[in-house]
Amino acid sequence: MASSSSLHLSQALLARAVYLHGFNSSSSDRVSLTFPSFSGLKSHSPCKAATSTSASRRRGGAISTTVRAAAVETLGQTTEVSLVEKSINTIRFLAIDAVEKANSGHPGLPMGCAPMGHILYDEVMRYNPKNPAWFNRDRFVLSAGHGCMLQYALLHLAGYDSVQEEDLKNFRQWGSRTPGHPENFETVGVEVTTGPLGQGIANAVGLALAEKHLAARFNKPDNEIVDHYTYVILGDGCQMEGISNEACSLAGHWGLGKLIALYDDNHISIDGDTEIAFTENVDQRFEALGWHVIWVKNGNTGYDEIRAAIKEAKAVKDKPTLIKVTTTIGYGSPNKANSYSVHGSALGAKEVDATRKNLGWPYEPFHVPEDVKKHWSRHASDGAKLEAEWNAKFAEYQKKYSEEAAELKAIITGELPAGWEKALPRYTPESPGDATRNLSQQNLNALVKVLPGLLGGSADLASSNMTLLKSYGDFQKATPEERNVRFGVREHGMGAICNGIALHSPGFIPYCATFFVFTDYMRAAIRISALCEAGVIYVMTHDSIGLGEDGPTHQPIEHLASFRAMPNVLMLRPADGNETAGSYKVAVLNKKRPSILALSRQKLPQLPGTSIEGVEKGGYIISDNSSGNKPDVILIGTGSELEIAAAAAEDLRKEGKAVRVVSFVSWELFDEQSDAYKESVLPASVSARVSIEAGSTFGWHKIVGSKGKAIGIDRFGASAPAGKIYKEFGITKEAVIAAAKEVS
Amino acid sequence: MASSSSLHLSQALLARAVYLHGFNSSSSDRVSLTFPSFSGLKSHSPCKAATSTSASRRRGGAISTTVRAAAVETLGQTTEVSLVEKSINTIRFLAIDAVEKANSGHPGLPMGCAPMGHILYDEVMRYNPKNPAWFNRDRFVLSAGHGCMLQYALLHLAGYDSVQEEDLKNFRQWGSRTPGHPENFETVGVEVTTGPLGQGIANAVGLALAEKHLAARFNKPDNEIVDHYTYVILGDGCQMEGISNEACSLAGHWGLGKLIALYDDNHISIDGDTEIAFTENVDQRFEALGWHVIWVKNGNTGYDEIRAAIKEAKAVKDKPTLIKVTTTIGYGSPNKANSYSVHGSALGAKEVDATRKNLGWPYEPFHVPEDVKKHWSRHASDGAKLEAEWNAKFAEYQKKYSEEAAELKAIITGELPAGWEKALPRYTPESPGDATRNLSQQNLNALVKVLPGLLGGSADLASSNMTLLKSYGDFQKATPEERNVRFGVREHGMGAICNGIALHSPGFIPYCATFFVFTDYMRAAIRISALCEAGVIYVMTHDSIGLGEDGPTHQPIEHLASFRAMPNVLMLRPADGNETAGSYKVAVLNKKRPSILALSRQKLPQLPGTSIEGVEKGGYIISDNSSGNKPDVILIGTGSELEIAAAAAEDLRKEGKAVRVVSFVSWELFDEQSDAYKESVLPASVSARVSIEAGSTFGWHKIVGSKGKAIGIDRFGASAPAGKIYKEFGITKEAVIAAAKEVS
Repeated sequence: MASSSSLHLSQALLARAVYLHGFNSSSSDRVSLTFPSFSGLKSHSPCKAATSTSASRRRGGAISTTVRAAAVETLGQTTEVSLVEKSINTIRFLAIDAVEKANSGHPGLPMGCAPMGHILYDEVMRYNPKNPAWFNRDRFVLSAGHGCMLQYALLHLAGYDSVQEEDLKNFRQWGSRTPGHPENFETVGVEVTTGPLGQGIANAVGLALAEKHLAARFNKPDNEIVDHYTYVILGDGCQMEGISNEACSLAGHWGLGKLIALYDDNHISIDGDTEIAFTENVDQRFEALGWHVIWVKNGNTGYDEIRAAIKEAKAVKDKPTLIKVTTTIGYGSPNKANSYSVHGSALGAKEVDATRKNLGWPYEPFHVPEDVKKHWSRHASDGAKLEAEWNAKFAEYQKKYSEEAAELKAIITGELPAGWEKALPRYTPESPGDATRNLSQQNLNALVKVLPGLLGGSADLASSNMTLLKSYGDFQKATPEERNVRFGVREHGMGAICNGIALHSPGFIPYCATFFVFTDYMRAAIRISALCEAGVIYVMTHDSIGLGEDGPTHQPIEHLASFRAMPNVLMLRPADGNETAGSYKVAVLNKKRPSILALSRQKLPQLPGTSIEGVEKGGYIISDNSSGNKPDVILIGTGSELEIAAAAAEDLRKEGKAVRVVSFVSWELFDEQSDAYKESVLPASVSARVSIEAGSTFGWHKIVGSKGKAIGIDRFGASAPAGKIYKEFGITKEAVIAAAKEVS
Repeated sequence: MASSSSLHLSQALLARAVYLHGFNSSSSDRVSLTFPSFSGLKSHSPCKAATSTSASRRRGGAISTTVRAAAVETLGQTTEVSLVEKSINTIRFLAIDAVEKANSGHPGLPMGCAPMGHILYDEVMRYNPKNPAWFNRDRFVLSAGHGCMLQYALLHLAGYDSVQEEDLKNFRQWGSRTPGHPENFETVGVEVTTGPLGQGIANAVGLALAEKHLAARFNKPDNEIVDHYTYVILGDGCQMEGISNEACSLAGHWGLGKLIALYDDNHISIDGDTEIAFTENVDQRFEALGWHVIWVKNGNTGYDEIRAAIKEAKAVKDKPTLIKVTTTIGYGSPNKANSYSVHGSALGAKEVDATRKNLGWPYEPFHVPEDVKKHWSRHASDGAKLEAEWNAKFAEYQKKYSEEAAELKAIITGELPAGWEKALPRYTPESPGDATRNLSQQNLNALVKVLPGLLGGSADLASSNMTLLKSYGDFQKATPEERNVRFGVREHGMGAICNGIALHSPGFIPYCATFFVFTDYMRAAIRISALCEAGVIYVMTHDSIGLGEDGPTHQPIEHLASFRAMPNVLMLRPADGNETAGSYKVAVLNKKRPSILALSRQKLPQLPGTSIEGVEKGGYIISDNSSGNKPDVILIGTGSELEIAAAAAEDLRKEGKAVRVVSFVSWELFDEQSDAYKESVLPASVSARVSIEAGSTFGWHKIVGSKGKAIGIDRFGASAPAGKIYKEFGITKEAVIAAAKEVS
């Protein structure tokens, strides 16, 4: 295991310093040096696992000829190879040991990707382990999230306080900081939540978009205050998912040059060899998507190949880069490497022993050798230095460009400008009626003036969703400072990209839009928003049969219910202008959960009694002629049906009934109110309750109770003018009146 | 508008006959003739809309050099060009007039795609308009479903009874057979339901898979009884959706040579020029996916180009073909062509007039000129002849290969073999406990022996979902007769492909599998299953926090609720062996709606009292020590929690309580029972009810009532061993007992 080549320590330190400040930076004023070649070491192979196995049996050799293999160049790398390999094996065994102890997890990926993991975290990436939130850090996303022990091992070595030895030993246990997949809300240092395949690479597109946008908006010729990369490791599974093609098509379109994705091409997925279901030419597809593509043929021990590829990727400024790194899954395991058996189960004591022997690893489980520890220990001070330098840079920026600095700071900290909510429009019953999708656009255009982090767009429905920011142009390759994002017809990618934007910096408030029914296309991304606490605003228009002629494929029925059932989502269905403004207020304030706004295509009146303040309580009384909190009947509506409830109440009151009308704009917010408040709106003693909503009645029985009645639609919609469908489906004032009489 | 070239009628008839029997067939014993060239006509351009506009400004000329443009060859086409153009304009104006009358719809695509539509339905496709269900018909899918007036116009001209003039005039109206998007359940002749983009192309992959499978299974050297094509028209929107990349990657992998997709490359989507969000090289991407790619540069008037491309596509047997047809959206409209304004709105009276003038169309709205009508009228007799020929062929097949014929017939008709349900395994409480995912595999392997149309697979989780059919190999390019389908990590494509298989022939029973939580990735396809009445079986394992360590990204919480809210879905959560068998019985019998089976990862006991018959009723009593239908308390459980309810009942009974335990395996089926039956299970007088389910309580209040208690999980899960999470989340016997005491 001894290395045949090394540099004197002083040289090594110099080299590393230059490496950090030259190799990693895109600034032109940095030093660039040439170091002695280590290419002679690349054949150093201390273990049995054949390094060329997987490379030599690549998909029928159908690699596009235009994809160049990574050059094995002379690089500015100075750490002794023996130490590099020791570090890489440390990563491997931390993963092996943690999975073994938990008897659960995925050792295969960490074992195969340890070399690229090491190079990224030890040599390439700029971060401060003692302040993982440092704004200008490079971002890393493990899109193949099942391999999370790779990331935990790296965070541990790099000195993040969040992953101590104890945490590694508690891998996948109750209450631990090392859950079964990377979760940003559990583990400081993890940027996003991955595991569901393809989400991570799409998140990374969002992170890179955020960087490109901020850099274009705030960098000055004399001060490039925003300057960092986004690195991803993704696997075959991510590549097969449609979401990754959507997001990567956009990354290519936008020319996200600072997005560098390392594709762990290990040819194995859960069902065995990828040959059984995945024979496309990935390289060629990515070229078609506008990416720069590099192939590292030996990802197992070709450290210089990996380094050269990353260097080349950084040199390509106008395109994202895919580095296909051919690896052996479970590298080092003599009997399980290169098979699906190493993908998702512990190796077993016997094979762990065999692997220890094979890789020459004499240490106890979870042991980090002293020299490895020492080697990595520099990241604390280096990181602090990087941050201090950046802070100094920011201080200068602030002096010279105070206005921009204040805006950037707001994005970095997430602090909302004082009085921002005054920008929200207010309406009176005399204000002209309008579709809530149009009222939504008034809010977006008002808010963008006061919220520096608001940006977003639609999945090719901007003119239907009404999401254009009129004072801004399009975020495009040549105009990344703009704030209208054009996602194309890519709902799933859109949602996940917005998650990435939201998690880039606390002050970002991304919104995205499509027809409400097409939340079905992006549901997995919305669920991740909810889980990873990304405050994305989902602007979902055409929210019911009220869209009319497009018919049942376009008419949401079960969607309100389906999101009310999802944890940590605010599902809002405003009825008019004030409620739309209230929904935006709530959405902006709830940074730790996504908000979904269900908005009408059709025109609605401005109703008496609605208010922003009411929306903040989720459910509230908009009109009432009862006294003593004892109405004869309570009519409950949401969105476009609140108007119907109000009209029915008018008629019932004329007949002498005491009728309360409740707007139930957000069930979640209502649920969070005090019992006293809830009792004041829905008194337990009043069981005569009727709800009306142009959607599934599923769930409404909790609100209307066993004796109440829920009016809704428990079948698919139909193609016809909206008014006709409402009538045929019985979503009418007459139906509410009849139900009210029945229950009261 | 006069054509400068024509053939004598007799020649034309001969040519057409040969065309039908030579050009359309892949049999080698057919005649192949060469006809006079019409290439001189391709410049015939009767209208202002520039035919080269869109072709000349293609995405920066970045067309892969390996993609050949379609040759303008001498083809067996005999209809006078003037008549072809008249027919094409008939299609255009039927679309224009119907959208105009409805004042709603999408005229742009039909106007641009009328030439390819005409060529497909008038010249290429084999079908019988008087028996649209004829088994060996070519299938057509309009993946860009918003352009449905194209398909309605074609069905009308071709003589399908389902689309009469009256139907065209009722486009998008209540109760019409011409809804706003193509819906197979509304319009006979429409194969699948499209509109949500990308679904159609994925359905088409399923249709083509079905053909390839049946052909491989049933064709004999002397009798190719299965032999038809699947044609698709898809647009830019479909291309951007991830699902289409998933499905097309599989189509390339499987080598579906009889799948021919015409890509309407019109460069316009709703938000304007596709340049703003879609600049990838589609041709190159499809080559990377293993498709044959052809470019028709002039899709507006290059009829021979289109014909040549289709001919070439049919000659390529081992790959699917993408024909990129560059067209002008809204072709013929002098002021709106080639702009998004023609995509999704009526042209307006003035522009309709201008278009009539521009295309030289003197007719009233909805008029089909006599010569066009006469020309198309032959399809009724031709279709009948095609079917009669095939019937004769099948009769011969039946004589010679009676066993295979019976099996094929069962697939064609959908008739289940008598006594098939005897194959379902039955269990006693003494049978060994097992995870329902394993019990599911026992059912699948038992059923495949008696159900000739059962086939399916998993999205790269076969060994976790337990979906392998042990007596069959993999459906692959070289072994398409096999019945294990390997979908790769492509849930969304998988669901839509299964919809296509299900709708190919009534006897197909496709199943597909992933972790239950990843229904989020395929929800749009599942919704289409429900809407289009495709009896797909969704085998969804790892159905709760019971999966343990993989954590919240993998633990479904709200998924049961979200599908119970979806119309026309059977959501089934069996508790043990008998209930799993019952779920399969229900799933197989319900051909007109999809079934979702939520199955456990963890081992469960075989419970006393469960039965197949009980499952068929959705909810039923598994144990009861009460009398007179008056239990002290009713405990209701599903799936893995039924065991907990049963154990709690045991304890409560020891304390002297009269306790009923109800399995609530399918809410939908229970809801369909008689009131008397429902009362016998859940008597209105008993309000002491406790439900337990390891998922969201959303919706349960309808079952347990205002005074009952729902035990469940209304937060995201956690990464830890399953038992620990159950305990921490209070999904325990103790919680049920406490709740039962509280409510009774």
